[in-house]
Amino acid sequence: MMRMATIETGLYRIPLPVTLSDSTHGRIAAFELITCRIRDADGAEGVGYTYTVGRNGGAVADILSREISELVEGREADDTEALWHDVWWGLHYGGRGGPTVLALSAFDIALWDLKARRAELPLFRLLGGFDDHVPCYAGGIDLDLSVDDLLKQTDGNLAKGFRAIKMKVGRPDLKSDVARVSAMREHLGDGFPLMADANMKWTVEEAIRAARALQPFDLTWLEEPITPDDIAGHVRIMQAGGVPIAAGENLRSLWEFKNYIAAGAVSYPEPDVTNCGGVSAFMKIARLAEAFNLPVTSHGAHDITVHLLAACPNRSYLEAHGFGLDKYIEHPLVLEDGKAVAPRRAGHGINFDWKGLAKLSA
Amino acid sequence: MMRMATIETGLYRIPLPVTLSDSTHGRIAAFELITCRIRDADGAEGVGYTYTVGRNGGAVADILSREISELVEGREADDTEALWHDVWWGLHYGGRGGPTVLALSAFDIALWDLKARRAELPLFRLLGGFDDHVPCYAGGIDLDLSVDDLLKQTDGNLAKGFRAIKMKVGRPDLKSDVARVSAMREHLGDGFPLMADANMKWTVEEAIRAARALQPFDLTWLEEPITPDDIAGHVRIMQAGGVPIAAGENLRSLWEFKNYIAAGAVSYPEPDVTNCGGVSAFMKIARLAEAFNLPVTSHGAHDITVHLLAACPNRSYLEAHGFGLDKYIEHPLVLEDGKAVAPRRAGHGINFDWKGLAKLSA
Repeated sequence: MMRMATIETGLYRIPLPVTLSDSTHGRIAAFELITCRIRDADGAEGVGYTYTVGRNGGAVADILSREISELVEGREADDTEALWHDVWWGLHYGGRGGPTVLALSAFDIALWDLKARRAELPLFRLLGGFDDHVPCYAGGIDLDLSVDDLLKQTDGNLAKGFRAIKMKVGRPDLKSDVARVSAMREHLGDGFPLMADANMKWTVEEAIRAARALQPFDLTWLEEPITPDDIAGHVRIMQAGGVPIAAGENLRSLWEFKNYIAAGAVSYPEPDVTNCGGVSAFMKIARLAEAFNLPVTSHGAHDITVHLLAACPNRSYLEAHGFGLDKYIEHPLVLEDGKAVAPRRAGHGINFDWKGLAKLSA
Repeated sequence: MMRMATIETGLYRIPLPVTLSDSTHGRIAAFELITCRIRDADGAEGVGYTYTVGRNGGAVADILSREISELVEGREADDTEALWHDVWWGLHYGGRGGPTVLALSAFDIALWDLKARRAELPLFRLLGGFDDHVPCYAGGIDLDLSVDDLLKQTDGNLAKGFRAIKMKVGRPDLKSDVARVSAMREHLGDGFPLMADANMKWTVEEAIRAARALQPFDLTWLEEPITPDDIAGHVRIMQAGGVPIAAGENLRSLWEFKNYIAAGAVSYPEPDVTNCGGVSAFMKIARLAEAFNLPVTSHGAHDITVHLLAACPNRSYLEAHGFGLDKYIEHPLVLEDGKAVAPRRAGHGINFDWKGLAKLSA
């Protein structure tokens, strides 16, 4: 038995080096980082986090500090299934999605970090090591860059060691999207893994039209063509577009993924460990995808997710983009031959610069 | 043009006269009330609210005061579609469900109240009056009452003028549920509208077994037999149970209702205006149900919802239960011949006792 002694919540605004934009979220000047630190009676610590693109973070922090701390007080930290279940149902009315799930995700990540640290195992080994070298792509938020700047950013990513790249699409005119993807394909050469992300910009018919127009450029996948609320629409795009579809960063539970996967609405399920319900939920989604013979990819939080995909035979690419958080982490992600390497340190191995973060407290 | 001038958020804990319980939420000692008051440049006011069964309220209040107020600053209050859209998408990342939708609901209710007050119309007329006398049932939270106390509570509801009643089921043994429903049917007589609410207690097979066991007692509907995340399970219960199914208090958008309705997973869609996205979303859900030839019922917030159902040709029963809020409202719901009467005052016609509430500020 090792009971939780304290749970500490942090809320920070992380400014971005440059303002980013995509087709849906508009201009993003800062991310919110919400942290959860759990200490057990021995003083061992587990750390979890979640993030937003600038809003809902106050609510997430409120749920961690006001609700979850009270719900789990004095509980055995290793009982991750029981704790997840009790938090999900304890917060179900008015929860079941949104900020409540982001808070639960941060809490669950901290529990798994603590469990792995106590076991003196890197998280990927605790979860069932498969391959600690995980294919990885650079996720660019680049919809407003000129083609020249897009290619320049791409050269930067190649220089950093990336061997797969994702770009944004969803500009006001499809012609411009096609020209940009064409320029990227030409720049990268045949066979280089290239993905495109529409951030829910299109209607179903627009998405089918775009998918067909983009077919010649051999995309690994087209991501979030439409709103996550239209499962039947995803099925139509899958059937008519002729391009594999990735989706999932805006799905908030195992059950939402099940609805997509069972309906044939997605080729690459793409959970985000910081908003799908944490490590517990991410792993169930990854195993569900395996059962349906689907690869699993990821969104956000690459430092944690590299461990999760390193435990999955069906892992596809890890998304890497740090939204300025790398500055506050002791050991940034290591790439070898274009693959992300799951660290051998115990837990997920992320050590935050708490002093540096304190200046960004919101 | 009448721009919003101020938005004021309140968070209150409303103690219950007695601790309530159902099969899922455990013991409920207090509700949280979260209010949203919008004033326009002329000083006209619209009031909205949402509530929880004790948790997530701090997050809801945070989203209203920190996020929504900023997102809509200075906007035209009558543009309810534009405002709803911009809040939904402005808070989409990390929102899309949970406390974010409860906050949006309270905000949207306040906008509709303001619109109706300015137009000097009762809300049901603004929305399209159909019948201001709405069939109504008393929703009891009574799972732990003895059969004697259950019947005593029922006599109290009959004395108050109710002509339809809902009871809880989902006790540890089905035999006890059957005995209680049987006692109620005998007490109320044949043909008296009686519903039963399981609050997501069962597995699919347990629900089918229960529905079949309850068939002899002629329930108007069986409510929330299983978790809201299992649409296919609802379809099986609909097909195999032989009892109409109500569900919806835990669905958070028009699109979740569409998934249920299009799949044949529900007989009585049951949105709650305070958590489905407000008046704007409730009315779309009600009209969607109409298109599918389904009656629409409701959950919670009867003072507001009486107006919404009074504007629907396909309205079924309004749920009435006040969770102790009646004490702080000037004009409680009026019943005539078992029907709730939509008031003729402008707006939704609820005037809170703000001074009394102030003592319960959380």
